Amino acid sequence: MSNFADVHANSRFAADKMKKNNLFTTERLFCDVYCFEPGQVQTPHSHDGSDKVYYVIAGTARISIGVDEREVGAGVAALAPSGVAHAVTNPGPERLTLLVLMAPKP
Amino acid sequence: MSNFADVHANSRFAADKMKKNNLFTTERLFCDVYCFEPGQVQTPHSHDGSDKVYYVIAGTARISIGVDEREVGAGVAALAPSGVAHAVTNPGPERLTLLVLMAPKP
Repeated sequence: MSNFADVHANSRFAADKMKKNNLFTTERLFCDVYCFEPGQVQTPHSHDGSDKVYYVIAGTARISIGVDEREVGAGVAALAPSGVAHAVTNPGPERLTLLVLMAPKP
Repeated sequence: MSNFADVHANSRFAADKMKKNNLFTTERLFCDVYCFEPGQVQTPHSHDGSDKVYYVIAGTARISIGVDEREVGAGVAALAPSGVAHAVTNPGPERLTLLVLMAPKP
């Protein structure tokens, strides 16, 4: 595994559901690129003992962290702490690309 | 602390040296925005027991991970694994903004 990764080259989308593309995995974290076509979702879920950060690279994301739901664009980061339900929707009309880092890897 | 943070609003530069701006801190990770004026550096260092990911938001970064040094632009991520020396230089001419995630917080 290289220690360098180009996000654009790793931004693969899928017609049936949002696609997770892994950049790096260690015992302490993983770093992925999540790609959403318009309308695709990551349904509400939570992780006990792991924290996740989303960073919007391109497009618009409707992100919920607990009861706090916001529609945000490129350049916004969101923290989903351990045990707190979180979800993502791409409201469109553009494709949505997120950098995602989770520690530790569940 | 909010669970949402705008990177642009948190991109503060300093004339004397590169500036670290914290977005999120938990017991498992921190997420910062590092801002480098042209010519500013983060000197070589390593962390035992923590992994770091850099993501180039804007500008050009000369990043070394061990013996692998590359000059990269926006959209490239780099992993500095535990114990491996890493460093960053902004070769200019633009300002450099990096998203930085480290797990766990040292």
